[in-house]
Amino acid sequence: MSKKITSREVDYSTWYNDIVQHADLAENSGVRGCMVIKPYGYAIWEKMQAELDKKFKATGHQNAYFPLFIPKSYFSKEASHVDGFAKECAVVTHYRLKTSDDGKEIVVDESAKLEEELIVRPTSETIIWDTYRKWIQSYRDLPLLINQWANVVRWEMRTRLFLRTAEFLWQEGHTAHATKDEAIEETEKMINVYADFAQDFMAMPVIIGLKSESERFAGALETYCIEALMQDGKALQAGTSHFLGQNFAKAFDVKYASKEGKQEYVWATSWGVSTRLMGALIMTHSDDKGLVLPPKLAPFQVVIVPIYRNEDQLKEINKSVDSLKSLLEEKGVSVKYDSRDTHKPGWKFAEYELKGVPIRLAVGMRDLENGTIEIARRDTLEKETVSIKGVENKIVMLLEEIQENLYSKAKSFRASNTFEANSYEEFKQIIKKGGFVYAHWDGTNATELKIKNETKATIRCIPQEPSEENGVCMISGDHSERRVLFAKAY
Amino acid sequence: MSKKITSREVDYSTWYNDIVQHADLAENSGVRGCMVIKPYGYAIWEKMQAELDKKFKATGHQNAYFPLFIPKSYFSKEASHVDGFAKECAVVTHYRLKTSDDGKEIVVDESAKLEEELIVRPTSETIIWDTYRKWIQSYRDLPLLINQWANVVRWEMRTRLFLRTAEFLWQEGHTAHATKDEAIEETEKMINVYADFAQDFMAMPVIIGLKSESERFAGALETYCIEALMQDGKALQAGTSHFLGQNFAKAFDVKYASKEGKQEYVWATSWGVSTRLMGALIMTHSDDKGLVLPPKLAPFQVVIVPIYRNEDQLKEINKSVDSLKSLLEEKGVSVKYDSRDTHKPGWKFAEYELKGVPIRLAVGMRDLENGTIEIARRDTLEKETVSIKGVENKIVMLLEEIQENLYSKAKSFRASNTFEANSYEEFKQIIKKGGFVYAHWDGTNATELKIKNETKATIRCIPQEPSEENGVCMISGDHSERRVLFAKAY
Repeated sequence: MSKKITSREVDYSTWYNDIVQHADLAENSGVRGCMVIKPYGYAIWEKMQAELDKKFKATGHQNAYFPLFIPKSYFSKEASHVDGFAKECAVVTHYRLKTSDDGKEIVVDESAKLEEELIVRPTSETIIWDTYRKWIQSYRDLPLLINQWANVVRWEMRTRLFLRTAEFLWQEGHTAHATKDEAIEETEKMINVYADFAQDFMAMPVIIGLKSESERFAGALETYCIEALMQDGKALQAGTSHFLGQNFAKAFDVKYASKEGKQEYVWATSWGVSTRLMGALIMTHSDDKGLVLPPKLAPFQVVIVPIYRNEDQLKEINKSVDSLKSLLEEKGVSVKYDSRDTHKPGWKFAEYELKGVPIRLAVGMRDLENGTIEIARRDTLEKETVSIKGVENKIVMLLEEIQENLYSKAKSFRASNTFEANSYEEFKQIIKKGGFVYAHWDGTNATELKIKNETKATIRCIPQEPSEENGVCMISGDHSERRVLFAKAY
Repeated sequence: MSKKITSREVDYSTWYNDIVQHADLAENSGVRGCMVIKPYGYAIWEKMQAELDKKFKATGHQNAYFPLFIPKSYFSKEASHVDGFAKECAVVTHYRLKTSDDGKEIVVDESAKLEEELIVRPTSETIIWDTYRKWIQSYRDLPLLINQWANVVRWEMRTRLFLRTAEFLWQEGHTAHATKDEAIEETEKMINVYADFAQDFMAMPVIIGLKSESERFAGALETYCIEALMQDGKALQAGTSHFLGQNFAKAFDVKYASKEGKQEYVWATSWGVSTRLMGALIMTHSDDKGLVLPPKLAPFQVVIVPIYRNEDQLKEINKSVDSLKSLLEEKGVSVKYDSRDTHKPGWKFAEYELKGVPIRLAVGMRDLENGTIEIARRDTLEKETVSIKGVENKIVMLLEEIQENLYSKAKSFRASNTFEANSYEEFKQIIKKGGFVYAHWDGTNATELKIKNETKATIRCIPQEPSEENGVCMISGDHSERRVLFAKAY
């Protein structure tokens, strides 16, 4: 029952798994590649959902729900999409089980075979655009701004909790527009919504950019992404927003009558983030003692641990804690008071450190006498004893400070792990150690592939910034207009 | 494009479908039995979810997420459960598609056959109890109070939007307890949470009771339910809460060490409500003009329609409406202002009537001159013109009044369609016309089945009230201790 966390130095990958497991975030299930998201982990995901949902609604989107299953034939309708998606997926072929003839087991009833197989959605463009055909007739029906919160399944061979699982939870926005410009504007708006969320709530700095052709979403004309740098120097793609052009409108025959009465194909976008964000959150802030959570996403921001020898002492401490708890809750701070007598204070300290609770308060008998309380910050591990009077104001400020500190810490980590390479030799040396590398590239798939094969690094994005800078591709020597962002990636 | 609603009198079932379709709640998809929940319908479901989730959390439950897929063998572990559930379900047999040899289509890759088939969850007891085995060791781990919001699939042959669909959305609570009494207490607590929600938010009166043995959940020792009466005189089961005894603990070997150090099997409950509640909501309140929504679940409670001839008039009206809208929103009222020039006021009036918006306000130039506004209630269809000054307070009160009026209207409808039958002849006569019928029953499956076969009526529940009343079974003449509730049901 030891909850020792392997250090990052010793084994980064085990460190990650230890945190996911010991902080009670998620675990593998009896179903290959499918995870169980445990209550503490799910509570963080709920906070993410709530904030994202608010942002989607504030930008005019509505939620809806589309079927889990997609008829196989739908995938064939958009040629590049089927290549990217319909291959590794869960296929439903039958709709009934029966008791075997010998009465001993449950078997598939072969007489209940579906005429057309159903695919468990790996993403919903096809079923949604099949529906939009019925919803869109006129320019008055546009824009159509819809989001779905759902589970999706991609049959991944190598899975890791949160980062790559066969089933995962996500949201997928699917919008339809009258013009190309409007669709591009939407695509860009949503990648900025994701970037703002990453920075303001996850305290995770991200680079916004475009994917190169080879990394684009199957069926998209452009894919925008946000890329974050993890503590092992690998990049993690945290969200994508796709400009789909008229590909799906053409595949599913979705046209609208313009104001001038002309029939036009609709322009589309789609965009999504998933429970993968949980992996990004963990790897951005956590340390060798366990999870570290930004206050804005912590299931509870403050935990209070009483230190007592007997029931009478606990009763006295309760009085003091109850009023502090109310004061904090009035100020919008979420508080857990753990007065269980089944666990010792030391165990509780370790437990909440492991679970990344931003602030821990401890109150003992001497504190009651002195009118003090002990405050411990999870981010810096600093402790101090302060007067309990007015401490609620201090805590509100401290939560803000922790949120900001985590962001600036992550930002300086990224800064000190971001490099420019001016030759392929230099590039290879840097990439071996990890980090973000800005380098010139000639824009060809061939060069990109060569670099990937030789170094495992990929173009994470063609970033919005820095802006243009003439140079030559580090491989071919051909002209390049800007540096692109390389890294090894999750 | 006509949105005419068939009257209930002419065809109740078409009336229901017309409302679901024309009020933009849901529609059938290209996938047999699976629905698309449209944004307006989904917004109502989100309100239901939010309120239920609040109640679950207030009663100590946490959310988590378990896999969509369940290995076939899990179902065989609880014998009665497999009979009830594992038969009509979606079976995943393969995990890959490929391009056919002739390159013309996408086919299932036969080489990617799963060793063990996976069932798309029809309910999650088995996968959850397989997980609980790892989570529960000691009495300290109990009670375990968990809820999941998820999609589930049951391969229904005859489907109807919201009422019976192959895929539906629901929540399923799954709790584990140290003692039988505690588990029964939880089962009862949760059926009361559902009843309170139905009454306070859906404005739908329900009867709480126990299911007869033949109607019990597969694997339960007792099933509690809430039953509501629809306008066609048929009952609708709106929620269930199951006392599962130690069945699943034994099937999945979930034991805990008691305080005394003894190994004991855990006691279980499960409980759920689904998007079926949408069907119940629609059929409880709506009329021949369309949907009628209780204010507490309406996506927007007030719609404001401006009546204007030109841009200048609209600008003037906007000023007045903007300040009223702010006043209402400050009071927590949700408001939609529909000033679109693409649709006429008459069209908008019909549209929002159809969509069941509780209060419609209309403002024209004469209103501006007179300082008035027109208020129309959706529930009674009454209209009045009142002073715009202070109208926000009137609206807040009116929303409460509408909420209460809908509940009392539904309650009197139920009262006038609830009967006692003292002979089988009488029973048959009443049941033909529909409604709730209280009658004596001898407690046997045989009698229940005879009644069902001959009248299509089933025992909806053995109600908590009225309490005991000695009598004789209307079929067998055997002794009966209380009347039970019969009805034809959805």
